Amino acid sequence: MPLSDSSGRSNLESVFHPRSMAVVGLSPDPHGTWLNQVYLQSPLSAGFKGPIYPVNLKGGHIGKLRVYPSLRDVPGPVDYVVSCVPAQHTPKLLGDCASAGVKVVQLYTAGFSETGEGEGIELQNRLLEIARRGRMRLIGPNCMGVYCPSSGMSFSLDFPKEPGNVGLLCQSGGNTIYLIRSGAARGLRFSKGISYGNACDVNECDILECLADDPETKVIAAYIEGISDGRRFADVLARAVSAKPVVIYKGGYTEAGSRATASHTGAMAGSQAAWDGLIRQAGAIRVDSMEEVADTLVALVHVKPPRGLNACVVGIGGGASVLATDELEKDGLKLPPIPVPLQEKIQQIIPPAGGMLRNPIDAFPLTRLILYRKGAGGGQPVSVARGDKGWGDFISLIEEWQDIDLVVFQFAFDIPPIPADNWVAATIEPTLAAVRMCRLPSVVVFHSVVTDASWQASRRMQDICLAEGIPFFLSLRGAAQSISRIVDAGKTHGSRPAGKRA
Amino acid sequence: MPLSDSSGRSNLESVFHPRSMAVVGLSPDPHGTWLNQVYLQSPLSAGFKGPIYPVNLKGGHIGKLRVYPSLRDVPGPVDYVVSCVPAQHTPKLLGDCASAGVKVVQLYTAGFSETGEGEGIELQNRLLEIARRGRMRLIGPNCMGVYCPSSGMSFSLDFPKEPGNVGLLCQSGGNTIYLIRSGAARGLRFSKGISYGNACDVNECDILECLADDPETKVIAAYIEGISDGRRFADVLARAVSAKPVVIYKGGYTEAGSRATASHTGAMAGSQAAWDGLIRQAGAIRVDSMEEVADTLVALVHVKPPRGLNACVVGIGGGASVLATDELEKDGLKLPPIPVPLQEKIQQIIPPAGGMLRNPIDAFPLTRLILYRKGAGGGQPVSVARGDKGWGDFISLIEEWQDIDLVVFQFAFDIPPIPADNWVAATIEPTLAAVRMCRLPSVVVFHSVVTDASWQASRRMQDICLAEGIPFFLSLRGAAQSISRIVDAGKTHGSRPAGKRA
Repeated sequence: MPLSDSSGRSNLESVFHPRSMAVVGLSPDPHGTWLNQVYLQSPLSAGFKGPIYPVNLKGGHIGKLRVYPSLRDVPGPVDYVVSCVPAQHTPKLLGDCASAGVKVVQLYTAGFSETGEGEGIELQNRLLEIARRGRMRLIGPNCMGVYCPSSGMSFSLDFPKEPGNVGLLCQSGGNTIYLIRSGAARGLRFSKGISYGNACDVNECDILECLADDPETKVIAAYIEGISDGRRFADVLARAVSAKPVVIYKGGYTEAGSRATASHTGAMAGSQAAWDGLIRQAGAIRVDSMEEVADTLVALVHVKPPRGLNACVVGIGGGASVLATDELEKDGLKLPPIPVPLQEKIQQIIPPAGGMLRNPIDAFPLTRLILYRKGAGGGQPVSVARGDKGWGDFISLIEEWQDIDLVVFQFAFDIPPIPADNWVAATIEPTLAAVRMCRLPSVVVFHSVVTDASWQASRRMQDICLAEGIPFFLSLRGAAQSISRIVDAGKTHGSRPAGKRA
Repeated sequence: MPLSDSSGRSNLESVFHPRSMAVVGLSPDPHGTWLNQVYLQSPLSAGFKGPIYPVNLKGGHIGKLRVYPSLRDVPGPVDYVVSCVPAQHTPKLLGDCASAGVKVVQLYTAGFSETGEGEGIELQNRLLEIARRGRMRLIGPNCMGVYCPSSGMSFSLDFPKEPGNVGLLCQSGGNTIYLIRSGAARGLRFSKGISYGNACDVNECDILECLADDPETKVIAAYIEGISDGRRFADVLARAVSAKPVVIYKGGYTEAGSRATASHTGAMAGSQAAWDGLIRQAGAIRVDSMEEVADTLVALVHVKPPRGLNACVVGIGGGASVLATDELEKDGLKLPPIPVPLQEKIQQIIPPAGGMLRNPIDAFPLTRLILYRKGAGGGQPVSVARGDKGWGDFISLIEEWQDIDLVVFQFAFDIPPIPADNWVAATIEPTLAAVRMCRLPSVVVFHSVVTDASWQASRRMQDICLAEGIPFFLSLRGAAQSISRIVDAGKTHGSRPAGKRA
């Protein structure tokens, strides 16, 4: 495999679409170890199309699969090798790989440059030498590897099997898993994801370049601890941003955090000022945690881009409305007061007793009747339509309001004095019907979830949102921050973010 | 009942310990309404000792309880009345209450000064007049009322029945419920809680004064939207803080938030600068959300007070450790590097391959062996003891480190590639045994919970913490912010916060 294509760009075809795999160092123990689950059962269950060969000196079987004593014994060509052998045995393994014509080796094992010790650094350099001589690409060491639903590559049994439009480069394996899992639960799907650890060969620039060019990738998310070539990274990042939105969490932005990255992947963190400048100049979206990466992706992929930050905030509960207002405004949204003539119209639907009509709007009176009717025992679903003198007409009035750019529907789950189930049936379900109807950019925020009952009810409401393509957030802060960020990104670049409402 | 005792202070005895109650305006509908659950079933189930009389013009029965057509028909004296009748009927009801010798009336109903309309304001003033003439105290209107486990007063079926040491004054009913519920789930218990709404009579000063003097209350939490008498509040607050820690979330601290409070409880919010000065001068702890109230209470009540902010951060996973470091340091903690001689000793227990030893510490190698041994199928609990060359000895080494004030054990639940259950059994359970052993102030943070499996596993770990008296937080930010706040409060006032490790 050539190290780069004719344009000089990295060719990662065999990284994401190998025709066959071998996993070296798995235990044939009948109970299996967790690594069997990770590197054998996960791609098998994700539908990897080519053969997967377990390799272990001891031979034997793992389930129905024969374990081959060495790479030489494998009955066919191997494109991609996962190495789970201890660090000191990796040079030998890489030699075998080169002889066997392997194209990519992913090294799960740690104990290399990230230890900060001469021995580990030297070992890593040796691997790189062997790989270069053998024209192989290395992923890692000290990483989880590749997730690519379209080729059936995976390293966790619960990753979605269907592909999507988010491309992920992530220096940490755990953070990769967290983002894929939490993204999946929020309706995101991925084109490609890669946990690349110490980045001794395939690095952030190679992957970013690949994702920038990848037609299946519409949005890029990155967790980066450090970079080796600042100038190339700046170039590649600027080019990626010109093609699609790029969200970056630079792990280790605090002093201790930067020490942590050195110890985690051996990354040279670089100064914060340099990172700030680099990311801002390229026009990428900088965030401060993995949760914020997920929130910003949801905003980019699922929210109809608002023109600006003026929000109308609708919810149930007075204290919850005050709290929501504080948190949303603190984190970037603006809540203009409702014009008096519009307030008077809304008052026909939501009487001021028990409600709040000045933005935020406490729509409790709309649901109180439902709640009284249903009592504590539940009842039939409530229909919502324009002309209903309820939620439907309320939405029509809000749509008349020219000053606002989006509507935030916010729900605190653990504020009602009665069981979550009845409350949710009377308040949130009808509201979601109203959200579906709303022509303005809209987001839903489910927050203040503490009890099991609220967790379950919130999950059911999330499922409705997923099924209906309604974007939702799990914290007020996350919603406000990420909406601000996509509006900001849209302004800076004179164009809208790529995503639109699903 | 005298309006104040001989010292001039408010006497709220009949607010928290009435001998009998009547609930006016409940529906005798056999299916009941949710208000029956709130104001009848809740105190019944909480063990209210005196009689509770439902009152409704229609008469009839609710369950086995006879419904009396009017207060006059009730066969005994009534100390405390809950009013669920519509606003326009409340003056008549208050007249009846005065005739019947009622001492306290709590008005659930809204539609008074918070509407901002002349009619509602006038109605509220009329109620106050009738109450003053009849020597009755009013709670509300527009509020949920009183929770007092020792007397069996309650307004939600899931509030803890056993009393505790946190006193709560809260202008919002929903926020009261959220705090009691989320506090209960975090091991907090309450002496008294009151949702006091529009505060037309019993107000923040009366309640704060009462909680300051209350021997059962060791820590005070307040959600306040506005105050009517700034000078008195400043005095009362200063006196309260001199007696015990006071945590305040001033609801509506943003511009739109302040408009929201006016619309919620009719509160005059006051300028932010005035509030800042007032709270700082009194030495109270200011926070910005109900979640932060709960976190700060957990820190005050359950965390052994640290001398300072230098933390050693221990967890599983490299990316999670970097992320934890960033979030903890951003929100106020400091992570000093581990001295080299100590690092070398730790290295005997946690080899650097797959671990991180510079603070944060990624203790994965400690649990990897357990994980390998257990495989994907679980296994026996792992014992932890000093001299075990594992967690036990690790804790002993950390205790040698003179520079640190506390240990933060942090766990990201959705980062492992295998099911949460096995991961938790191999990683978090043994760590909790280690936390128990640790003589330094310690906190546990459970974060990055996304999937159902992780939610369930996290709840089980929380239960272990609750049973063992181990303080835990549900976000890194919450842990760092609240530890900073209690350390700060301890310094400012030259004394330690009242709480100690349970």
